[in-house]
Amino acid sequence: MPIVSLNLTGGKSYDIHVENGAIDKCGELACRTGFQGKIAVISDSVVYPIYGGRVIKAFQDAGYIVSSHVVPSGEASKSLSQTEMLCSELVLSGHDRTSCIVALGGGVIGDLAGFVSSIYYRGISFIQIPTTVLAQTDSSVGGKTAVNISEGKNLIGAFHQPSLVIADPLTLVSLPTRILAEGFAEAIKHAVIRDMDMLEDLKAVAPNMSIGFSLDMIGKLPDLIARNIAIKARIVEEDEKEILDVRALLNFGHTIGHGIEASRPYGEILHGEAVALGMRAALFLSSKLMGLPKGYSERVIGILKEMGLPVLLPDEVIPDLVFSKMLTDKKFKNGVMRFVLLDRNSKPVVSDNVSEEDVKQAIEELRVPC
Amino acid sequence: MPIVSLNLTGGKSYDIHVENGAIDKCGELACRTGFQGKIAVISDSVVYPIYGGRVIKAFQDAGYIVSSHVVPSGEASKSLSQTEMLCSELVLSGHDRTSCIVALGGGVIGDLAGFVSSIYYRGISFIQIPTTVLAQTDSSVGGKTAVNISEGKNLIGAFHQPSLVIADPLTLVSLPTRILAEGFAEAIKHAVIRDMDMLEDLKAVAPNMSIGFSLDMIGKLPDLIARNIAIKARIVEEDEKEILDVRALLNFGHTIGHGIEASRPYGEILHGEAVALGMRAALFLSSKLMGLPKGYSERVIGILKEMGLPVLLPDEVIPDLVFSKMLTDKKFKNGVMRFVLLDRNSKPVVSDNVSEEDVKQAIEELRVPC
Repeated sequence: MPIVSLNLTGGKSYDIHVENGAIDKCGELACRTGFQGKIAVISDSVVYPIYGGRVIKAFQDAGYIVSSHVVPSGEASKSLSQTEMLCSELVLSGHDRTSCIVALGGGVIGDLAGFVSSIYYRGISFIQIPTTVLAQTDSSVGGKTAVNISEGKNLIGAFHQPSLVIADPLTLVSLPTRILAEGFAEAIKHAVIRDMDMLEDLKAVAPNMSIGFSLDMIGKLPDLIARNIAIKARIVEEDEKEILDVRALLNFGHTIGHGIEASRPYGEILHGEAVALGMRAALFLSSKLMGLPKGYSERVIGILKEMGLPVLLPDEVIPDLVFSKMLTDKKFKNGVMRFVLLDRNSKPVVSDNVSEEDVKQAIEELRVPC
Repeated sequence: MPIVSLNLTGGKSYDIHVENGAIDKCGELACRTGFQGKIAVISDSVVYPIYGGRVIKAFQDAGYIVSSHVVPSGEASKSLSQTEMLCSELVLSGHDRTSCIVALGGGVIGDLAGFVSSIYYRGISFIQIPTTVLAQTDSSVGGKTAVNISEGKNLIGAFHQPSLVIADPLTLVSLPTRILAEGFAEAIKHAVIRDMDMLEDLKAVAPNMSIGFSLDMIGKLPDLIARNIAIKARIVEEDEKEILDVRALLNFGHTIGHGIEASRPYGEILHGEAVALGMRAALFLSSKLMGLPKGYSERVIGILKEMGLPVLLPDEVIPDLVFSKMLTDKKFKNGVMRFVLLDRNSKPVVSDNVSEEDVKQAIEELRVPC
């Protein structure tokens, strides 16, 4: 099976195991890392009923004492009050600094359980078992954890690396089409910033979006997921805490995308859908300001459409609100707008030279059919 | 003026400046670290009215934009809800990842503001300006930050080092006698574990407890505070995250002390007072189990009494409750009781060999006049 290693200083390196059926091996894989304490599985009300039993059995079969903690499904669980409830449950279940938290679910659970593990007893170890495309290809790797406050998403959090990631692509098969598609938006982003050859492989996935995964495709998923994880892992190794402009490249499509997502109630426009729109806007700005060839943009927009991702701004989205929400993005420093654009050779670069007019035009262009 | 440097890997080293009047130099000292962003001063309702104006002026005079955020004085502010309110205020005041938090106050403010700085935007820089003996000699140095949950104190937190500590011993002169005395409990602990010669200097402080600080004593305070900080700094350098048994030595007196403090409503028995009682209990166990000479214990207990610290368990404290609260201490691993004791040569060691009966006897002995 593919194993991607993420190498960091300070004893923080870890492996990402990608294998169909890997979920049933989590106990054995945890054992191999040398971990010996108790385990607390944190999951949500949708994922836990499907995979909770198998994960708990796998850990128990490997000799671990396991407790489980289920939160309501959805973005609203990424809160400090939910964090506090979980920490209280962990104390009452007898977990101390030698325990390990297991995040079983999508991006919300990974962010929330990861954050809990970063602050419980001033930080304990944790294992990611991502069950969505978005979590497997992107959010479970790299150590970013976060919760939301009313002023904005992910404004509170920590850099806290997992000690192990177990990605089982078979869990993707049970996802609703829309959740599946939004996850592949991040994969398309990876292709754009580091591996355009992967676009062809992603194209092959597109037909599986609406009619279900073919056996052939299921067989190919582990390599495709691992390829995405490797891209993310190499970038995180270069710039773990986003201090250089390297990790910032992962924000391609996320700046205007963030504004679009935040301009509507949480969950109305999914993160990956907003990123798809944000990528189209970033491609427009790249052509206008950096001379990116139009043909390149059309190729990327083509795959977004094939995947069933939105490329037209929904009517109910208000451009001015998108712009003002965008400005509260925590990716900005000292209020300066920073965009990841592609230059004329399609190389991603961080630019501080995008004007307010440029941004507003890019948002308006999202109304134009393509 | 004394400057103690704390040297850590990963760019986390920092200086602790100790000087009478240093509080008015905070802007200049921040400048010298190269910091250029905005500043958010977090303080409490008792300290802010006394020192807030001077601190803000000093930062503004050095060219900084400053906002201030005041929380109610007392342990109850060390909560996740207060954390969330502060994070919201920081967003509304325009603070981003380039801002710096200044903790102006005692241990509660240092722990709370330090924790906020560890999770706001996944961690921003912070400066400690401790204004109590306890905060100056102990809690402002070493990067432990925390808040409480209903299941126990400091169960949520982070290791997050400040980028600068400014200790102004003149701020101690305005402290109530009881707060002053409890702070010196940690200084006595430092003497016991690393520098028994310092006991004589601490003895000289004792008469200042009740009748106010003499000018002569005020002149000597910076060196005495710096001596304590240096002890803490050397220990933190050896074992930043309390993984070895080195930093654990700082827990001398804190195990039974924690149980005593937690057995009563927060604030009834001050932390330093509980530590004084905990030290007496640890000395008893050290004599009983490790052969520590009685004369040594008497010397330490003598200085506790001179400082006005309690050495007799208050009537309202229930020994069984002390014991059960002690067991929830997060210093324990896998439920094993761990004590810092002194051996026959008065060398501090970590011991797992203290029985339940020993502990209960040590608590009962605190009823015996000495």
